[in-house]
Amino acid sequence: MTKGSRTRRQIVDRALTLASHVGLEHVTLGTLAGELELSKSGLFAHFKSKEALQLAVLTEAIERFVAAVVRPALAEPRGEPRFVALFDRYLGWIGRGGAPSPAAGRCIFMALSQEYDDRPGEIRDTLVRSQEDWRSAVARAARIAVEEKHFRADLDVDQVAFEVVGIAMTYQQASKLLAHPDAERRARSAFEALLARCRRPRRRGPRRA
Amino acid sequence: MTKGSRTRRQIVDRALTLASHVGLEHVTLGTLAGELELSKSGLFAHFKSKEALQLAVLTEAIERFVAAVVRPALAEPRGEPRFVALFDRYLGWIGRGGAPSPAAGRCIFMALSQEYDDRPGEIRDTLVRSQEDWRSAVARAARIAVEEKHFRADLDVDQVAFEVVGIAMTYQQASKLLAHPDAERRARSAFEALLARCRRPRRRGPRRA
Repeated sequence: MTKGSRTRRQIVDRALTLASHVGLEHVTLGTLAGELELSKSGLFAHFKSKEALQLAVLTEAIERFVAAVVRPALAEPRGEPRFVALFDRYLGWIGRGGAPSPAAGRCIFMALSQEYDDRPGEIRDTLVRSQEDWRSAVARAARIAVEEKHFRADLDVDQVAFEVVGIAMTYQQASKLLAHPDAERRARSAFEALLARCRRPRRRGPRRA
Repeated sequence: MTKGSRTRRQIVDRALTLASHVGLEHVTLGTLAGELELSKSGLFAHFKSKEALQLAVLTEAIERFVAAVVRPALAEPRGEPRFVALFDRYLGWIGRGGAPSPAAGRCIFMALSQEYDDRPGEIRDTLVRSQEDWRSAVARAARIAVEEKHFRADLDVDQVAFEVVGIAMTYQQASKLLAHPDAERRARSAFEALLARCRRPRRRGPRRA
């Protein structure tokens, strides 16, 4: 790693932490320069604009999400174990606010969904792609669980992904904004109920394929 | 209504529309003065600070939510009909972005949950109270449905409220940010599954109360 790329990395890192606290919108070259004790022109050498910086932050957040949630879950056995691992790691990500240290802010993707849902541009496009990718990853894990015969054959896997995201969102509001001590238990209970609907029915005898 | 209170109302109205597009954080006396063709000092006569204005906007949004969602649902018969009406009107509110005209932005409460979840102060306190009130209203409607024997006696009504909020949140992301045409159908399908879990089981003969 060259000195330049180390500095760039340090900038993105700090910007990501800042974004998870005050919102990406407020991450400007000025604020960051102050935080990092760099000159604005020093920052400008790495990022030509506020938008370029914000896009780098979002891209970094996506990479971290994939590294912390998606990739480790893919190492789990195909079927329900992998599907459950995705959810577990998703809750963990939200609990940590998508940051390395515990309780360090909020999930940047959920915050951005609010900040950017009606602002066209490259940031919004990247955000949309990341959220579509995530819903697809959950749906795909559910689809594999159907193939493994853990889940019912007629399962609507996109519906499952839609609901998994909802559980995570209400969990985030309950645990962060409302500071409900039972938020995680409720999230797991909602997920258990969803799992029960996904699984093949057992008691009513053999089903058609 | 005096001229002063008419003007005040007009200011809050415009600020609320603005907040649902750019976020409450960006509703400043300066921006608003420009929008309303008022002087900043004219605005200042009505609101002594940006915070006072933002608090008035949030309070107005809460009143509109109660008028559009909670109060009409309370006119429905006790039990499942009232519970369903709350959900229906909640979806309608999100679909309209909490604004009078269709597709006019996003739900101000969800946006604020992101903007203010770690910023202490009166706005955050008011927001927390409004979200607690809403979850309580949903739980209370479910509790009444238990009393009316529409829902099962052992139902965890706070869990139901937790899940209803989640369905609405994923619906908002799917319909606004991701522009999924099937978002409303998916929200209704998730709600139907939740309803099925709430209802008293029918096929297994009489239950103990």
